[in-house]
Amino acid sequence: MRKILIFGAGKSASYVVKYLLDKSYDENLHIIVADVNIARAKKLIGDHENAQPKYIDITDTRARHAAISNADIVISMLPVKHHIEVAKDCLTFNKNMVTASYITDAMHSLDARAREKDLIFMNEIGVDPGIDHMSAMQVIDRIRSEGGKIVLFESFTGGLISPECDHNLWNYKFTWNPRNIVLAGQGGAAKFIQEGSFKYIPYHRLFRRTEFLEVDGFGRFEVYANRDSLKYQSAYGLDDAKTLYRGTMRRVGFSRAWNVFVQLGMTDDEYYMDDTENMTYREFVNTFLPYHPTDSVELKFRHALKIDQDDTVWEKFEELDLFSNKKKVGLSKATPAQILQKILEDSWTLKEKDRDMIVMYHKFGYELDGKMHQIDSTMVTLGEDSTYTAMAKTVGLPLGIATLLILNEKITTPGVLMPLAKEVYEPIMKELNEYDITFTEKKVPYLGYNPLNL
Amino acid sequence: MRKILIFGAGKSASYVVKYLLDKSYDENLHIIVADVNIARAKKLIGDHENAQPKYIDITDTRARHAAISNADIVISMLPVKHHIEVAKDCLTFNKNMVTASYITDAMHSLDARAREKDLIFMNEIGVDPGIDHMSAMQVIDRIRSEGGKIVLFESFTGGLISPECDHNLWNYKFTWNPRNIVLAGQGGAAKFIQEGSFKYIPYHRLFRRTEFLEVDGFGRFEVYANRDSLKYQSAYGLDDAKTLYRGTMRRVGFSRAWNVFVQLGMTDDEYYMDDTENMTYREFVNTFLPYHPTDSVELKFRHALKIDQDDTVWEKFEELDLFSNKKKVGLSKATPAQILQKILEDSWTLKEKDRDMIVMYHKFGYELDGKMHQIDSTMVTLGEDSTYTAMAKTVGLPLGIATLLILNEKITTPGVLMPLAKEVYEPIMKELNEYDITFTEKKVPYLGYNPLNL
Repeated sequence: MRKILIFGAGKSASYVVKYLLDKSYDENLHIIVADVNIARAKKLIGDHENAQPKYIDITDTRARHAAISNADIVISMLPVKHHIEVAKDCLTFNKNMVTASYITDAMHSLDARAREKDLIFMNEIGVDPGIDHMSAMQVIDRIRSEGGKIVLFESFTGGLISPECDHNLWNYKFTWNPRNIVLAGQGGAAKFIQEGSFKYIPYHRLFRRTEFLEVDGFGRFEVYANRDSLKYQSAYGLDDAKTLYRGTMRRVGFSRAWNVFVQLGMTDDEYYMDDTENMTYREFVNTFLPYHPTDSVELKFRHALKIDQDDTVWEKFEELDLFSNKKKVGLSKATPAQILQKILEDSWTLKEKDRDMIVMYHKFGYELDGKMHQIDSTMVTLGEDSTYTAMAKTVGLPLGIATLLILNEKITTPGVLMPLAKEVYEPIMKELNEYDITFTEKKVPYLGYNPLNL
Repeated sequence: MRKILIFGAGKSASYVVKYLLDKSYDENLHIIVADVNIARAKKLIGDHENAQPKYIDITDTRARHAAISNADIVISMLPVKHHIEVAKDCLTFNKNMVTASYITDAMHSLDARAREKDLIFMNEIGVDPGIDHMSAMQVIDRIRSEGGKIVLFESFTGGLISPECDHNLWNYKFTWNPRNIVLAGQGGAAKFIQEGSFKYIPYHRLFRRTEFLEVDGFGRFEVYANRDSLKYQSAYGLDDAKTLYRGTMRRVGFSRAWNVFVQLGMTDDEYYMDDTENMTYREFVNTFLPYHPTDSVELKFRHALKIDQDDTVWEKFEELDLFSNKKKVGLSKATPAQILQKILEDSWTLKEKDRDMIVMYHKFGYELDGKMHQIDSTMVTLGEDSTYTAMAKTVGLPLGIATLLILNEKITTPGVLMPLAKEVYEPIMKELNEYDITFTEKKVPYLGYNPLNL
């Protein structure tokens, strides 16, 4: 039997384990799920005969070496910082490796040696990054093969709540790491290109510079810019494109309300607040507002953010119990962001049966035979429950499929890679179809950002 | 003759050198002004017989040791990072030392050894920090000695342009390092206490949370919060004060206009922009605004910042030529903050004969005999020209005076110090009076932030 070693049995591992176990008889696979929390590993594999849970502390070099040297291929679902140790060991023991994480500089530096040894280190093969790369490259390559020249590429992804479970005023629940949501957009100005002009948006303006999108059957969404839309410009071969814009999708109205937290300073993770243990939610809000002996926190809040009496955004904050003088923060030393996360988790945590939703939207503008064209391509995947989420599915399936393709020598080009080559994306996108991860394309009039072009 | 070694002959050294040279006959002083730019040192001392310029590269350990071991006391006017080397050498060679800079952790760590060796390392003895410490402690100690209990302390300083040279719409010119002005307020949320409540203001709100102040004979000013108003709470003995607020003074209207730069992202120093060499001022502005094929940069700017047609703030931006499509940035690789600085320097650079102005405003609220009282204390100092600035005067004189007092053993308490002790502030404040650096006190009704207390 061929041994697949999976490091990390966290939230996102459910589907990749399920996929590989389902294939284990036909493909003759034995799956080792390694984690410091062996109970988590056991839970994922149940009593499947082709699987084995294993206690491994990833910092234990000896145990790591033993496990890797004994495997045929390695999947790392660990936190990003641990991938590099696994990758170095894979170099030593001549093993291929798969991750869903962004390629770090350290990982990239192994490229020459991986190619020398004919090893494949496939990264960024989850959903975003992952399915976004593959689904985009599939269309880009096709347009190019037909003689088209891409002038515009926009790409948006959102991890949201499925419509039938979407019951709060924010149309949002935490379907992924809440901390990442609270800190989203921080770390530098967003950068993109529109019609040949570089554009920059500082963090504190990001959530007011949104655009709307419509997905057939799923209604309207809005998009805010990712930090660096130019990151894949060269990798995608889009150096001549005039518009490059990548973003994150939310339901309409989310960003405008979220901006209020940003404006007040509640998403700041850079300093610890004073006296947070016994602080009420109301007191937390009040620390960001001017002192007044009698004016209410509510009115100071409305005034500071210019929220009119008849503005429905207000209900979103009331729904979160933001002004409660009963609920306490209860964290002994916390940043504003940590406290905000605590408050949001009260309202936005997935219930057992809640289903999540992954939405992806690409726009490809191109010139062909002297005319402008545009293809919009969309994908919506719904989760089953709070364990088998759309997030885990869209991350796990490409990982699992890629692992098998490498094991079966269908993917053979070595190196530290992203899934941009036809050899990679074509079979994976095809198999994802079987799991209802499908893109719908439609031709629309090319708009760009220049309506006068029409 | 007693040898005083001054490291650094930069802008702020003019007055300390002048002061010490003026005293050199009576006090039997020989002044060595050391700099890597010997021309600068020569310019400061002219052909005065009691002074000597000296070329010293501060990183040249041997030259530094030779100079320090040969001096009776050392003044460091170098950039902050170099003070620590000078201080360590002063420990080795048993020399007292004076600086106008904030005490760093490294400097603070020398405290025990300085006290052991009975050496005085006097820091923060310029204007802010410096005169602010001394003038505040003088009043605080007096109130306390009369039995009063301080409940409120607010302190504001501004480096501005003298009224008769104040000719632009911003009522502002660069009287100090322009880079520090552009980056002012960055690096974390502002923190202070009002009526017992901690308050935090994020950078992007700082310039809209201003308060107004009136200085007799000089009109109105506004104040924005410094980053950490609690920094000196314990050092000043104000642990029980209910309101602690330190800020920076500008002329009314400056902050609201400056906020526009902050909102757009023009004060960001964290990333390099693309194609800045040939970028016009207008193009610079446009990178922060959404793309549109025909809408003007002006209208997009007004719309993004909600600037009405009849809002006079607009003229401030026009005065800077911000929308010029002729003027070029001309910097090959620049951050937004560097470009903004370049644009502002066109308009805000001091002319040869321009006079600057230092304004300081303290509020002391206290309880005495069961009643609330308040003393407001203000100081205004005007410069003579662009060399003998009020900034150089208010930084240099306390430095020079302290140096002589230490040399003459009038200040004797050893350690790494700020000028908080009576032994230090009393003779210095007295002598500053002779140079027209004087505070005017007036009793006002105690207000605090709680008008209902009245």
